[in-house]
Amino acid sequence: MSLSSGSRNWQKESIRLHRSFKGKITIKPKVPVNGKDDLSIWYTPGVAGPSRQIIEEGPDKSFELTWRWNTVAVVSDGTRVLGLGDIGPEAALPVMEGKALLFKVFGGVDAIPIVAREKDPDKLIEFVKKIEPSFGGINLEDISSPKCFYVLRRLREELNIPVWHDDQQGTALIVLAALINAFKAVGKELRKGRIVLYGFGAANYAILNFLKMYGVDLGNVLVVERPGIGILSRTHPELESFKQKMPHWYEASLITNREGLLGGPEKAFTGADAVIAASKPGPGTIKKEWIKLMSDNPIVFSLANPVPEINPFEAKSAGAKIVATGRSDYPNQVNNSLGFPAMFRGALTVGARKITDGMCMAAAEALARYAERKGLSEEYIIPTMDEREALFEEAVAVAEKAISEGVARISFSRDELRERIREHMGLIASDH
Amino acid sequence: MSLSSGSRNWQKESIRLHRSFKGKITIKPKVPVNGKDDLSIWYTPGVAGPSRQIIEEGPDKSFELTWRWNTVAVVSDGTRVLGLGDIGPEAALPVMEGKALLFKVFGGVDAIPIVAREKDPDKLIEFVKKIEPSFGGINLEDISSPKCFYVLRRLREELNIPVWHDDQQGTALIVLAALINAFKAVGKELRKGRIVLYGFGAANYAILNFLKMYGVDLGNVLVVERPGIGILSRTHPELESFKQKMPHWYEASLITNREGLLGGPEKAFTGADAVIAASKPGPGTIKKEWIKLMSDNPIVFSLANPVPEINPFEAKSAGAKIVATGRSDYPNQVNNSLGFPAMFRGALTVGARKITDGMCMAAAEALARYAERKGLSEEYIIPTMDEREALFEEAVAVAEKAISEGVARISFSRDELRERIREHMGLIASDH
Repeated sequence: MSLSSGSRNWQKESIRLHRSFKGKITIKPKVPVNGKDDLSIWYTPGVAGPSRQIIEEGPDKSFELTWRWNTVAVVSDGTRVLGLGDIGPEAALPVMEGKALLFKVFGGVDAIPIVAREKDPDKLIEFVKKIEPSFGGINLEDISSPKCFYVLRRLREELNIPVWHDDQQGTALIVLAALINAFKAVGKELRKGRIVLYGFGAANYAILNFLKMYGVDLGNVLVVERPGIGILSRTHPELESFKQKMPHWYEASLITNREGLLGGPEKAFTGADAVIAASKPGPGTIKKEWIKLMSDNPIVFSLANPVPEINPFEAKSAGAKIVATGRSDYPNQVNNSLGFPAMFRGALTVGARKITDGMCMAAAEALARYAERKGLSEEYIIPTMDEREALFEEAVAVAEKAISEGVARISFSRDELRERIREHMGLIASDH
Repeated sequence: MSLSSGSRNWQKESIRLHRSFKGKITIKPKVPVNGKDDLSIWYTPGVAGPSRQIIEEGPDKSFELTWRWNTVAVVSDGTRVLGLGDIGPEAALPVMEGKALLFKVFGGVDAIPIVAREKDPDKLIEFVKKIEPSFGGINLEDISSPKCFYVLRRLREELNIPVWHDDQQGTALIVLAALINAFKAVGKELRKGRIVLYGFGAANYAILNFLKMYGVDLGNVLVVERPGIGILSRTHPELESFKQKMPHWYEASLITNREGLLGGPEKAFTGADAVIAASKPGPGTIKKEWIKLMSDNPIVFSLANPVPEINPFEAKSAGAKIVATGRSDYPNQVNNSLGFPAMFRGALTVGARKITDGMCMAAAEALARYAERKGLSEEYIIPTMDEREALFEEAVAVAEKAISEGVARISFSRDELRERIREHMGLIASDH
């Protein structure tokens, strides 16, 4: 079965099952509704009580008296969905509903798909600010680059609930966790590694930021863009035009590539310890010959979906020691589902006002540590989705960091926190 | 137990239970998620299939392939919540979540509370237009008058999914059903009745429109506003100022009150067959003496919550033959929950693009017919919430009307429709 035809079969079967089930999630009452008295409690006249208390004690009280504490809006404008591009809000809805399903299954989070008919970045920001009072967190999804950088930055600054763009931070979180362990597995030091970022969209932009936060020496990092651009550098002849048109290229040109190298992929790959490709689907986007130019025991992350930039077998045969992809049918899957459900689980359980950089680092390190404890190998640098305990430890690490950094609305003792998160993830039965 | 202290006790107990349950609804997966293959169906790579199909066959396909077909956004700006006034979006959230609970329990509808930080009517309209692709219907709630008239009118015109303002159409629907039967019970003809609308906010404005649609002779209807205004009339000295400041008063002045009467409540009540009060909470907003001025076998609907404009016992002792209130602890409860869940159930099951006036009339008549078949009395003019079959018949009537008026996306045979609605209301088990 070839990679591409396999993906087409999933799609056919998926259409059939989507048509049959007509929705992947549903609303369920979680309170008893057995008669008139129950209605008087949950609706009028009783419900005026909780409303009054929120008026009197302030808007944060809504986290205690409604489902808000556990809800996330999965917001997309449908401008960059899967490999399909700008397909509009209605066509994006099956994807966002799928994301909401994963939020519940892996994080116990109540997520609502919200596809918005609004492409303008400033108006999209206004839209999200208007829905903020309904939710405990915002998960942005499949918003085109470069506007997604601006949208995320402003919303992180201006909202008082956690904001996350899964195509940026979600991918970066898992990549960092996997990279920490890949370097360990080959006996090299990540912070001094020669790392090539191949393709510089939402994912690799976020990965660069995460590498920086983790303490990687960015002078050793090279960013390679499309043919005609090549390695980004402060010496690049088009540097000034980047400033206007592609500010994230400009930014990367200044902070990476200490030596001021110029050139194409061959130049960049030469002597590299690791390549992280988040570029266009393969096969053949990354060439076998380039892998051969890398340092000893090279690490290759080939993240394009559904078809990686280079076939993993081919990468291996060219000498790659460790290969990771976005696919579940190969070892070392860089799977965002390892990230967002546990990230929001931890953040929501403690009523976090933000997702800080520290919480992202704590999550990546917790995932890496879990896999390391189980024993690293070339084929196991990152937990799999079957390892629910990894997600649990990750959520706990996030929540503890939120408390210690002072962004949590609620504080728990260590034991109580672990118990709450276990309960909220659905790993043990709750009272209700 | 006095009416007001009773309501305070419900509120106290409600706060306690809201704090304990931390949410009245939750998200539940409705598809199997047991392993990697299921994830490949419901998320990547399979989910690209449904997305592609929506791109190819058009946005309406999203109703077949996602939960959209069964979802309603309960949208409020928090500007007129219960008797509490403009309390803001966060304080409105417990109420909207309660509404979502009722949608599910009584209609099988997946409703999502969306409280919006936006009070400007035009911007609120834009906001709802942006979220349209996420939902199959919009239930507006607790938006202040008079802006709610404009917001509803424009959204009904501009959206391609059902739009409903429950404080207008919802109340009007149940009042009309109850009024049809009240007139029957006293042996009078509704279409020729002398009817007084006391207080002219969102509810009575909608009731006036519903009476018109039903064929009531509006020349016999009198609208009474606050002291200083009194009976609205084309001869009213302030008519021109209504035109600018209160266009719905102006409109009513022209279409009601054929005789051009002027004066206060005493004048209006004299000889009236029915009074519908949707004014400020009592007791004592409507005086016993006024009831005594009414025609024989007078009908009094006293709808203010939590305390009716006149105590039902007092109204009865003043000669009222039939009394209806908004309260569940008296007979003849005018309860919106008899309306919106079945209205949307019917509309969603057939994928209606609109809620037409005809669908509203069909719903009111179905409710009235159900109670009539059971046998009318002074204490039973409208079904109670225990009578699920009434809601079922109402939903069927709505769906049939949507099909016959050509606003349904899906058509069913009569038997199939009844079976589908029974299943969607949760009255029989579904396949999934």
